[in-house]
Amino acid sequence: MDFWFELASPYSYLSAARIDALAEERDVAVNWRPFLLGPIFAAQGWDTSPFRIYPAKGAYMWRDIERRFALRGLPFSVPDTETLTKFPLNTVAAARLSLIGLDEGWGKTFIRSVYHAEFAEHRDISDISMLAYLLDRAGTDPEQALERSTDAINRPRLRTNTLEASRLGVFGAPSFTVAGELFWGDDRLEDALDWAVNHE
Amino acid sequence: MDFWFELASPYSYLSAARIDALAEERDVAVNWRPFLLGPIFAAQGWDTSPFRIYPAKGAYMWRDIERRFALRGLPFSVPDTETLTKFPLNTVAAARLSLIGLDEGWGKTFIRSVYHAEFAEHRDISDISMLAYLLDRAGTDPEQALERSTDAINRPRLRTNTLEASRLGVFGAPSFTVAGELFWGDDRLEDALDWAVNHE
Repeated sequence: MDFWFELASPYSYLSAARIDALAEERDVAVNWRPFLLGPIFAAQGWDTSPFRIYPAKGAYMWRDIERRFALRGLPFSVPDTETLTKFPLNTVAAARLSLIGLDEGWGKTFIRSVYHAEFAEHRDISDISMLAYLLDRAGTDPEQALERSTDAINRPRLRTNTLEASRLGVFGAPSFTVAGELFWGDDRLEDALDWAVNHE
Repeated sequence: MDFWFELASPYSYLSAARIDALAEERDVAVNWRPFLLGPIFAAQGWDTSPFRIYPAKGAYMWRDIERRFALRGLPFSVPDTETLTKFPLNTVAAARLSLIGLDEGWGKTFIRSVYHAEFAEHRDISDISMLAYLLDRAGTDPEQALERSTDAINRPRLRTNTLEASRLGVFGAPSFTVAGELFWGDDRLEDALDWAVNHE
């Protein structure tokens, strides 16, 4: 099963926090695939997050997330008005680093710490020095990881993921693809894993 | 707890089919409130269903619904291309009848049969003769119900519901409001009921 996540997406964090335990219970192999929602939203005619375009839905979303994080025991701090104006954050650098980290074994720790910094502490995870700090905490050499993440081999990988997500019909995050099926949203994580079990 | 549903919404049907059993388990009183999504979507700048405006999301939705109905054991037939062009159906007459039926005790049977006719059989539930047939099946006198549904007392009630839904922040269906909280989507039905239990 492919797990499509966007580092700016709090609902993606909900899945990133629990997907390993649920997949292990069912003995399903999961491929973590960071991608960018920006180009996919742009293709739908949106120049920002739909939650900024539709205020009623946006206001609801933050409250829904607050309740969901509480139910799952994940720390969350509701963004204040000023922080909200910065969303969605630019996640290109963090996503490129995630790709390197997933190859090298420190990726999931790094990804979860990026989400935590962003949604529990309101850190600016588009800032390279913040990313360097999180890389160090994930147990890897920040300078080396940052250099590798932007080299000619790694740079196109994020675009490739985003194009493939789009080709598969992905329009939001998180999404899960398995055996020709698309599932959207943390609420469908169990359904997607069950589908993987029943349609190997 | 208030249960806000739109008769054109398949996800509302998912909740209408199971809300009574779940509410009874938790001893929560539920007030069924039909409303119209049309005016609420129009206020967001949409002149039709968002699933028609965003094709990738729309294509996904029908497959998601098909899978969900199957999981819940509810009959569903994927609309063909021609049927799809008729969505969303005009639900004003059916919703006005639902209000009468909910007063008189045949409302839930009628509502579920409207949904079944619409999504399992592709009947045109904006058609008065189809509604008359469903009223008869629900055990009430069609002529009398149709007359009462459009009288001066009943007519404004649907608009009142829609305005109140909007005031409460409702932007989609189904929605649930309880103790100052809004929950959106059949996926949040259990959360909403649990909230009612914990915040009486």
